[in-house]
Amino acid sequence: MSTQKFAVDGMTCGHCASAVTEELEALDGVTAVEVALVAGGTSTVTVDATRELTPAEVAVALDEAGSYGLVP
Amino acid sequence: MSTQKFAVDGMTCGHCASAVTEELEALDGVTAVEVALVAGGTSTVTVDATRELTPAEVAVALDEAGSYGLVP
Repeated sequence: MSTQKFAVDGMTCGHCASAVTEELEALDGVTAVEVALVAGGTSTVTVDATRELTPAEVAVALDEAGSYGLVP
Repeated sequence: MSTQKFAVDGMTCGHCASAVTEELEALDGVTAVEVALVAGGTSTVTVDATRELTPAEVAVALDEAGSYGLVP
């Protein structure tokens, strides 16, 4: 089991958080996603998974959810 | 046919605009909805309908779409 935290830019509202949650939950091995929304700032997204996610696949999921950026 | 413009507060992103569009399109007689989004400000929502909508029913639809306010 792995718990990872990602810093995400560009989310402004609960709809954004839902879209991001949905895309990340669709990734293989993901068991839970939690978004701590900072509208207009950098939000923290916590992902529980049965494996380690790569930043690249998280970035792709964020892009599919909307124009959200993974902060390095 | 009627075309009405409503001033709406609280929309921050395209997901908000979609939610508002969907709720207004569900109102009886509505044929088209267009949102000119001003994130963090007052957006303009233009509604084409076969009848005149009341501010009260628009306010209810906005509330169902999210916590969006009709500006008098």
